[in-house]
Amino acid sequence: MSSEPQNPPMEEEEANNAAAQSKKAAKKEAAKLEKQRRREAASVAAAETADTLADNYGDVPLEELQSKSVTGREWAEIGALTADLEGRAVLVRGRAQTIRGVSKKMAFLVVREKGFTVQCVVCVAPDLVSPQMVKFITGLSRESYVDVHGIVSVPKDPIKGASQQVEIQVRKLYCINKALPALPINIEDAARSEVEIEKALQAGEQLVRVNQDTRLNFRVLDLRTPANQGIFRIQCQVENIFRQFLLSEGFVGIHTPKLIAGSSEGGSAVFKLDYKGQPACLAQSPQLHKQMAICGDFGRVFEIGPVFRAEDSFTHRHLCEFTGLDVEMEIKEHYSEVMDVVDRLFVAMFDSLNEKCKKEFEAIGKQYPFEPLKYLRKTLRLTFQEGVQMLKEAGIEVDPLGDLNTETERKLGQLVSEKYGTEFYILHRYPLAVRPFYTMPCCDDPAYSNSFDVFIRGEEIISGAQRVHVPEFLATRAESCGIEVKTISTYIDSFRYGAPPHGGFGVGLERVVMLFCALNNIRKTSLFPRDPLRIAP
Amino acid sequence: MSSEPQNPPMEEEEANNAAAQSKKAAKKEAAKLEKQRRREAASVAAAETADTLADNYGDVPLEELQSKSVTGREWAEIGALTADLEGRAVLVRGRAQTIRGVSKKMAFLVVREKGFTVQCVVCVAPDLVSPQMVKFITGLSRESYVDVHGIVSVPKDPIKGASQQVEIQVRKLYCINKALPALPINIEDAARSEVEIEKALQAGEQLVRVNQDTRLNFRVLDLRTPANQGIFRIQCQVENIFRQFLLSEGFVGIHTPKLIAGSSEGGSAVFKLDYKGQPACLAQSPQLHKQMAICGDFGRVFEIGPVFRAEDSFTHRHLCEFTGLDVEMEIKEHYSEVMDVVDRLFVAMFDSLNEKCKKEFEAIGKQYPFEPLKYLRKTLRLTFQEGVQMLKEAGIEVDPLGDLNTETERKLGQLVSEKYGTEFYILHRYPLAVRPFYTMPCCDDPAYSNSFDVFIRGEEIISGAQRVHVPEFLATRAESCGIEVKTISTYIDSFRYGAPPHGGFGVGLERVVMLFCALNNIRKTSLFPRDPLRIAP
Repeated sequence: MSSEPQNPPMEEEEANNAAAQSKKAAKKEAAKLEKQRRREAASVAAAETADTLADNYGDVPLEELQSKSVTGREWAEIGALTADLEGRAVLVRGRAQTIRGVSKKMAFLVVREKGFTVQCVVCVAPDLVSPQMVKFITGLSRESYVDVHGIVSVPKDPIKGASQQVEIQVRKLYCINKALPALPINIEDAARSEVEIEKALQAGEQLVRVNQDTRLNFRVLDLRTPANQGIFRIQCQVENIFRQFLLSEGFVGIHTPKLIAGSSEGGSAVFKLDYKGQPACLAQSPQLHKQMAICGDFGRVFEIGPVFRAEDSFTHRHLCEFTGLDVEMEIKEHYSEVMDVVDRLFVAMFDSLNEKCKKEFEAIGKQYPFEPLKYLRKTLRLTFQEGVQMLKEAGIEVDPLGDLNTETERKLGQLVSEKYGTEFYILHRYPLAVRPFYTMPCCDDPAYSNSFDVFIRGEEIISGAQRVHVPEFLATRAESCGIEVKTISTYIDSFRYGAPPHGGFGVGLERVVMLFCALNNIRKTSLFPRDPLRIAP
Repeated sequence: MSSEPQNPPMEEEEANNAAAQSKKAAKKEAAKLEKQRRREAASVAAAETADTLADNYGDVPLEELQSKSVTGREWAEIGALTADLEGRAVLVRGRAQTIRGVSKKMAFLVVREKGFTVQCVVCVAPDLVSPQMVKFITGLSRESYVDVHGIVSVPKDPIKGASQQVEIQVRKLYCINKALPALPINIEDAARSEVEIEKALQAGEQLVRVNQDTRLNFRVLDLRTPANQGIFRIQCQVENIFRQFLLSEGFVGIHTPKLIAGSSEGGSAVFKLDYKGQPACLAQSPQLHKQMAICGDFGRVFEIGPVFRAEDSFTHRHLCEFTGLDVEMEIKEHYSEVMDVVDRLFVAMFDSLNEKCKKEFEAIGKQYPFEPLKYLRKTLRLTFQEGVQMLKEAGIEVDPLGDLNTETERKLGQLVSEKYGTEFYILHRYPLAVRPFYTMPCCDDPAYSNSFDVFIRGEEIISGAQRVHVPEFLATRAESCGIEVKTISTYIDSFRYGAPPHGGFGVGLERVVMLFCALNNIRKTSLFPRDPLRIAP
């Protein structure tokens, strides 16, 4: 994925005279062209020197950008440029997104900052803008950083090619940093919706479609699209609402170690490493340590941090590294107390997102159109048995003591949406056999467990349960699940010094954003995704 | 560190007859004792059956704790028990911290929840409390979880042995979960201050001192001390203030990958692993990816997440895994814009901690007494050269183009504190040679750089700088620092598509808490610390 500038080819041993002679001729030709190029450059330079308005534009030398001075100048945010600034002089910094020379005397420039764009107009005018300045601007490479000084104006007709409904009449323009003239992907192409591509195709025009892999190879370019700017600002909001809600309910934010002795919760899906001569692995979840924090008297805890899965899952919904939102809490009587937290937390989150992130959803929706999530004020709870029954009535037979697969989960999501009018619901009392060893069995039927999954648009986003807090029982459960008790003795020992009944859940941050926005691939909601085939950039 | 219950020894092959015979005798004796034990147990059971008030106490069977029912009962928080509840019936859940039987008719019990404690009094009374109930309570093991039903009363004299100034007159008491009778460390011992130990020693009494390693081996017990409850609640606050401040200034929270191809920023201090057949390592910092996020147009970003250092540092201030607080931002003109953020952020943080965490600081101070941090409203900034000069004037010669070591940093901290009355300050314009390759040199003197460190109580907590944003220059800088440019080509390439001047900084969360509270070891501010010798629990 390197796009380094081409180095001059190494001189190779010459094979025969003919080749050498043709090379000589080529060299001669090259030297001639070079001479010509220099002559032209000199004449351009002369013309520029002759420009009495030459101070109004040009490349800023690096020295000026090395913290040379503090001038006190103020830069306006492009996203904040509105009609009430009409007639005012502004200074903005952003990228030259598109540059269009209309004539030798006029050019248009769309400048972008954080996904917002403004149209800039350069017109030759005596004592203000020289033809050389128009030429300089027309020659800028896309995505270069520029400082634009100008006057805000409000055109009669609405502006189609930019987010802000004002223009800047350019007075001065300096290039801060140049982009390569040939970009591996154009932001315009990367920001295009499928609908647009299809429509153009029907009109006989073939527009560029940037595929997912190319996007990820050149992620720093891809991230600049308005949709991606929106996605990661929403991700930040999801995390923030999660934190603020839990803090308001008395939870303590913690950080547990990702480097774990031995092999974590077991299984082959761990990344192993050598820790100063000891076998170690990366935590598949903060499960064990967040429970230990409960044994350490923190009452209610949460953690936001990376979790690592070495699974070979090549699906739209699995990553090898993602951000886990984890919760663990004492429960007084019933695992419904944990579901109550899930319920209040997510309804509050959806409400807040819908209210505060309108601009971001709009930006995403333009490229990836989606319907707002349907959810109830009080989250629907169905037992696993009720879910199985619903599927049965729809003609789908599933093992009542087995797990649902992605397909049956999606089908059940559909049925629930039709019957209850919600795309967000909780399914609880899962069969014990399909849950981890530390899950508390139901008291009235040991074939079932005090556990739950939560679904958005038919896909699982949360897994939770009451945990076994009695060490002897925990050891028995581990054994019957085929886990060697010795390997998890520090974990089990944590419960020997008094442990309260407790439960919790885990959520994948990327999945929440993906499903809330009905995106089709989790790689779209991970800044620099890691999957079995990708560990760069 | 295992404290599993003893298993019955496996029967071994008998070596000779004598041994066999002695074994037989032992067995006979054991059988006799067992009979006697059963007889006694039966008589106790009979006595308990005879107790008409037997429903008021006892062990709660596991079944009742498996989410059997939701009763709607309410539990009061121990920390919220105050005199205005006098005469009211309450139900609390917590740990039996200390149990003291005064006679067969009376016992005291201190119950603890999240570091708060309340004294409970059990007195035999007709129709309320039986002698058997007192016996049951006296027999509880420390740290067991109990539900206490009782009436709040206010004693005449202040209560010394508990945080709450009310008592509970116990009516019912149930044991939810039993702790092992012999704990590896007592909370009382773990909570003791050095001052207390010294004082007792002078009075001829030798109190138990729990050393750091034992604490960490049994961290779930150690975490229960009031000081530790305070430390980790403050840590949570520090993180929260960091987030909220940055969000309020337009920063976006991001998550960058911890799994990195190749060897991160280089150097030997990385944890290496195999990533699906590719060589990979754990990120030593989010440095490269947070800069890439800036190239991805996010303008201002921050990240809170684990960073990994495989260094063999056996000091009081180094860990192999800690929580990094990282910031990166576009700068318009000068790296002072980054220092401005540091200044506002930390002054706001210290103010907020001092205001909101009084209880926590009090709890920490009882065990680890400390003076509040001295800091100015506007943070002092000294250049490196000024720092060197101050040291010189104090008779300490340091290399003006070298780095300071821990000792000279501490000395300079002292001098600054004396001269300027602050224990929090910024030292900037470090020699270029002692900073990473991506640091921007000063425009007026390439021997110095646009970089800074920040100190609390003479110890470094923050490192920051303007970065080189020009790809060709970055490559040159990497080369002259002995880094093979090929290995960081994806990073350098990120700057080829237009990059703004930018800078940022990184902070260690554990260090901030350690130094703000003047604690002497970073292991005290990490929940489950990882150092070269420790990867458990």
